[in-house]
Amino acid sequence: MGESEIKRRHTRTLLLGDLPIGGKAPVRVQSMTTTDTRDVESTIAQIKALEDAGCEIARVAVPNREAAAALHRIKEGISTPLIADIHFDYRLALKAIEEGVDGIRINPGNMKADRVREVVLTAKDSPAVIRLGVNSGSLEKDILSKHGGPTADALVESALRSIRFIEDLGFERLKVSLKSSHVPTMVAAYRGLAEKTDYPLHLGVTEAGTLLRAAIKSAAGIGSLLIDGIGDTIRVSITGDPLHEIPVAFGILRALDVRRVGPDIISCPTCGRCEIDLPSLVDEFERNLAGVGADIKIALMGCVVNGPGEAAEADIGIAGGRGEGLLFKKGKIVRKLKESEFLSVLLEETGKLIAERERGK
Amino acid sequence: MGESEIKRRHTRTLLLGDLPIGGKAPVRVQSMTTTDTRDVESTIAQIKALEDAGCEIARVAVPNREAAAALHRIKEGISTPLIADIHFDYRLALKAIEEGVDGIRINPGNMKADRVREVVLTAKDSPAVIRLGVNSGSLEKDILSKHGGPTADALVESALRSIRFIEDLGFERLKVSLKSSHVPTMVAAYRGLAEKTDYPLHLGVTEAGTLLRAAIKSAAGIGSLLIDGIGDTIRVSITGDPLHEIPVAFGILRALDVRRVGPDIISCPTCGRCEIDLPSLVDEFERNLAGVGADIKIALMGCVVNGPGEAAEADIGIAGGRGEGLLFKKGKIVRKLKESEFLSVLLEETGKLIAERERGK
Repeated sequence: MGESEIKRRHTRTLLLGDLPIGGKAPVRVQSMTTTDTRDVESTIAQIKALEDAGCEIARVAVPNREAAAALHRIKEGISTPLIADIHFDYRLALKAIEEGVDGIRINPGNMKADRVREVVLTAKDSPAVIRLGVNSGSLEKDILSKHGGPTADALVESALRSIRFIEDLGFERLKVSLKSSHVPTMVAAYRGLAEKTDYPLHLGVTEAGTLLRAAIKSAAGIGSLLIDGIGDTIRVSITGDPLHEIPVAFGILRALDVRRVGPDIISCPTCGRCEIDLPSLVDEFERNLAGVGADIKIALMGCVVNGPGEAAEADIGIAGGRGEGLLFKKGKIVRKLKESEFLSVLLEETGKLIAERERGK
Repeated sequence: MGESEIKRRHTRTLLLGDLPIGGKAPVRVQSMTTTDTRDVESTIAQIKALEDAGCEIARVAVPNREAAAALHRIKEGISTPLIADIHFDYRLALKAIEEGVDGIRINPGNMKADRVREVVLTAKDSPAVIRLGVNSGSLEKDILSKHGGPTADALVESALRSIRFIEDLGFERLKVSLKSSHVPTMVAAYRGLAEKTDYPLHLGVTEAGTLLRAAIKSAAGIGSLLIDGIGDTIRVSITGDPLHEIPVAFGILRALDVRRVGPDIISCPTCGRCEIDLPSLVDEFERNLAGVGADIKIALMGCVVNGPGEAAEADIGIAGGRGEGLLFKKGKIVRKLKESEFLSVLLEETGKLIAERERGK
């Protein structure tokens, strides 16, 4: 009610295994393993943990022949589509396709044209999708020198060059990424490319750093593009355990109302007006709701300034007063609660709502 | 080199105390206390802690007469401009101005027009700035019913109505905020208002929740606007200790290259290609650099794919190999390092660079 909706840009739909990407498909969340790809067992275990967290596409590094030869066995052990990440050596791409991966990611900045041709012609005889992964850290030398550095225009030119080259070979199962660690450059590049092609775009801020820093950079960069309807798959890149990437990715999609996965918990920062212990309530409530996937909106508000207004827009809300508060359901005041009742009543009402939603499915 | 720059929208410059806002002034970071404003000592202590963290504008809730009467004493104890946050009761605004605050924040959704008039006429005889704080949780009833809810257009209409009303009284020391807890609505509202007025805009996603959730929502909402050059002051609203708001706010400005405060640490997510313990290195390096305000760019990269490229764009960089790595300074390879030397050499080189920068000032 009363909320602005994002209009998604039109893109083609691709199938990555059985998973549609682009077009009207939800914006997909992907991640990449940090295990040694040759270690099949650890790699499968990490991908399964990512799947449990909600990851929809798994990518693995393929730096050598042994890693490529492990791909078929890895694919057998997992449910998500599998992408092989290839740099430099086109033979690893050929081997990955032979192993039956759902997609390969190649970087036109570090593979010669005649070798890209061989990879594309091999992919053409398979169901594999190709992601063109252009990255400011590995652009073609002639493009870098023409633009004086890894500018947004340089990234777009690199992508368009490779797109045309691959289209001329009769291959169109492409998605494209244009990553830069400099957020305004990344945003300008994707905006530029989105005007020139309707291939699905994979969004990411590369080399974004540790958890909070990466969440900020990714939300700003990916978020700016999603708000303009750009983006079909996303990856939040965090230095460390890739499991942390998934809640941040869904958090960005949730924050922008692009995918309603999990609860939207609205809570005020509190100020000199707040006469309840709101931070503890929110913390405990969030802890209790960890892992819940239902699309519900809860407003936990410290006072009467914006409390009733926010609570009226939420499925369930509390607007605090002095050691007490009003309980709202779907915009209507239900009753007054003592502060000591807040958590138990909230959890009870939330549980009822989730059960209703489940029955309604 | 090669990076896209954000072009800031033209806005008027206001003085908040001695602090310029809008125009060519840096995008300012503000926060709000959670102490009881009547408790002068605690409020000053919290503002001083916020100042130490880099906060440039402090706002306090003024819910009652005693809080208003404490404002002069609070102002005496702090260095940042002081803003009084007023709802419902116009007499508190009059008292706040009398107490010498640098600005008041009023919410046109909860104060009658003839009372707003009295506040504005009183502010006119003082140096105080007025922030019109429009909030989706407390819009005027007639505007809500006209638009069928707190839409972006409803927020813009509410703001424009109050702006015109105040301008007609001959007052123009205004800044404006249009907050919503729904990020696409908030972004659409600010974009709409930015086309219609050149008053400085204060950006925030309201009721954004706890730390990580709030960082994501704020970076997406505030970030999307900053990328388009919109925004003159920002507030990241986090449920809990306001001290957490400041690094997130500067993190957003840093990520978008809007203000270069503190180091930009680029680090890759690592993958099956990485043969050094990069996450530990980044963690320890970040810990050592906590609180450093110098504008430096450091790239810590796990392998040769994007490592040399990112390192070449940074002031100092490491591109990892098998248990070793290359040290880069300003784009040139300096020497090969053993993994055990990484942290000490990085800290030494960073220290030298900061010292150079200091001397250069």
